[in-house]
Amino acid sequence: MSDGPTITTIAERAGVSIASVSRVLNGLPTREDTVRRVLSAADELGYVPNSVARSLKSRRTNQVAFAMADIGNPVYLTMVREIQPVLKAAGYRLVLHSTDADVAEEIDVLRSLGERYVDGLIMIPLRIGEAHLKAVEAARAPVVIIGSVPDGTRVDNVRTDSRTGVRLALEHFHSLGRRRIGFVNGPLDTVPGSARSTAYAEGIRELGLPYDENLVEIGDFYRAEGAQAVSRLLSRAPDLDAVMCANDLIALGALDVLRRAGRRVPEDVAVAGMDDIDLAAVAWPSLTSVSLGSAERGRLAAELLLDRLGNGDRDPKVVTVPPHLMIRASTVGEETP
Amino acid sequence: MSDGPTITTIAERAGVSIASVSRVLNGLPTREDTVRRVLSAADELGYVPNSVARSLKSRRTNQVAFAMADIGNPVYLTMVREIQPVLKAAGYRLVLHSTDADVAEEIDVLRSLGERYVDGLIMIPLRIGEAHLKAVEAARAPVVIIGSVPDGTRVDNVRTDSRTGVRLALEHFHSLGRRRIGFVNGPLDTVPGSARSTAYAEGIRELGLPYDENLVEIGDFYRAEGAQAVSRLLSRAPDLDAVMCANDLIALGALDVLRRAGRRVPEDVAVAGMDDIDLAAVAWPSLTSVSLGSAERGRLAAELLLDRLGNGDRDPKVVTVPPHLMIRASTVGEETP
Repeated sequence: MSDGPTITTIAERAGVSIASVSRVLNGLPTREDTVRRVLSAADELGYVPNSVARSLKSRRTNQVAFAMADIGNPVYLTMVREIQPVLKAAGYRLVLHSTDADVAEEIDVLRSLGERYVDGLIMIPLRIGEAHLKAVEAARAPVVIIGSVPDGTRVDNVRTDSRTGVRLALEHFHSLGRRRIGFVNGPLDTVPGSARSTAYAEGIRELGLPYDENLVEIGDFYRAEGAQAVSRLLSRAPDLDAVMCANDLIALGALDVLRRAGRRVPEDVAVAGMDDIDLAAVAWPSLTSVSLGSAERGRLAAELLLDRLGNGDRDPKVVTVPPHLMIRASTVGEETP
Repeated sequence: MSDGPTITTIAERAGVSIASVSRVLNGLPTREDTVRRVLSAADELGYVPNSVARSLKSRRTNQVAFAMADIGNPVYLTMVREIQPVLKAAGYRLVLHSTDADVAEEIDVLRSLGERYVDGLIMIPLRIGEAHLKAVEAARAPVVIIGSVPDGTRVDNVRTDSRTGVRLALEHFHSLGRRRIGFVNGPLDTVPGSARSTAYAEGIRELGLPYDENLVEIGDFYRAEGAQAVSRLLSRAPDLDAVMCANDLIALGALDVLRRAGRRVPEDVAVAGMDDIDLAAVAWPSLTSVSLGSAERGRLAAELLLDRLGNGDRDPKVVTVPPHLMIRASTVGEETP
């Protein structure tokens, strides 16, 4: 082998660290000006691997990733069922990440885009902080975020309006004569938890009902944790006549808890969930739920990503899908067959 | 840039096509001797990118893929919940493929291992044919198969024994005095569908019962298709007093259909499923199910893969997890609280 330029000589010439040269040649995220200095130093030294590194950076993998909090939540499944065929028709295979809503893991996924194992990413983070947004904007491949990001963030974004969704359900309970409406939420440090908390407080006030903190309980967005939170709520506010649940898994847990406690749904306690997952329609009783247009959000996200892969330069787009209420037996009783 | 060797001059020297050189330098699957000729020609010509290509081929991605038929089936979710922490503890991130049991797609995933987007693969195929096995044996990264592969296949393999599982359920029905035991299966061209069909026929015979084809219906391993198959079965054999379902999603569909048909479970019709998914325990009534050790199979598969990643040369291992029956209300009635 010839005694040609090495990453050490390139590093000297470019005035950057050896690690930086290695990062650039491996297509890892690196500051723009470092990339430029390394590539021009390598060119000047006649370092041929540049072309390989460049082809590495530009090669298509024909894969797209979808990163969600928990593949156990059917709302993400609904999205996958929409995203996958849209991508497949365009020649892309879908790979999935279940991040457990862990911010560090999500940022790690965003950074890995520099390694080009996929051509683009659809992500639905539950917590969106500074570090997240920086990693999104620095991502080395196109990203679409499903969820609410701060206005002005440079990213394609599909959102819904869960605050309006919560109010639709509260108005429905109120129209049925319910006045002691409990609320079981997920963690308040998540974007949906925070939005739904505000929406419940506002909605209760707008209906002219007193805000009673005994009627509010925090659990998590899973069935088991939701059921435990409903149990706590029920022992603290045994006179409640309705429960608004921040997602359908919590609501399914509520149905279990109420059944085992001998409360009839909806006669004694009406129950509504959120997300309108497939299980809502087949639950017993079938579950009234606020649809946040999961299927449509998934499809729109896939379409935005494909559009971006075809046109990297256009301005970011924000698309909003409005919520609507699916009324079923858990609030209005079983229809007679 | 210097006028150094190019993939064209390497191709001439090695006596192979330009495409082959490109494949080798990009780490794509290529015949062993082609790889050797290309790399030695490139060395002789002083082509530096070799080192980049080599580091590309040997680089760790710290990702492992799990390819399953359908992320909507909770049995795979159970596996993911076991696989993910085992891999994470060893520094690997999990990426998921939902293949819809499509053989072409699964083979495509196996072939893509040459592109090194992951360091290894755990796959649970429903249909295992010649093409599959060839792709498994030719895979460019370690593979573990969950499911029954032909004896002698050179692959690490975790299996269960669903035939014994079906018989456990049939014996349970028989011990409860049930004699008209229906069977709702998934497609017969799948490995589990075929095994469970044989097991039902044998099990019925061993119990001294007549095999009645009116008691057998084929649907698919999903809840909606399962429910439709149970409806057909019920109208053809209205006198059945038990239904064995080839998985829990079908059994959950059976509970819906029987409820809407006014049949009491288990008084009129006892129901059992298979896989023992989380929903089985919280269904109403709770569902008797044959556990095929999904959690354990997932964990063992992850451990086998890690072991293989640490020691590429050992002989393939086959591990078998025995089934057991989880008896719940859908066969023996609700316990009094």
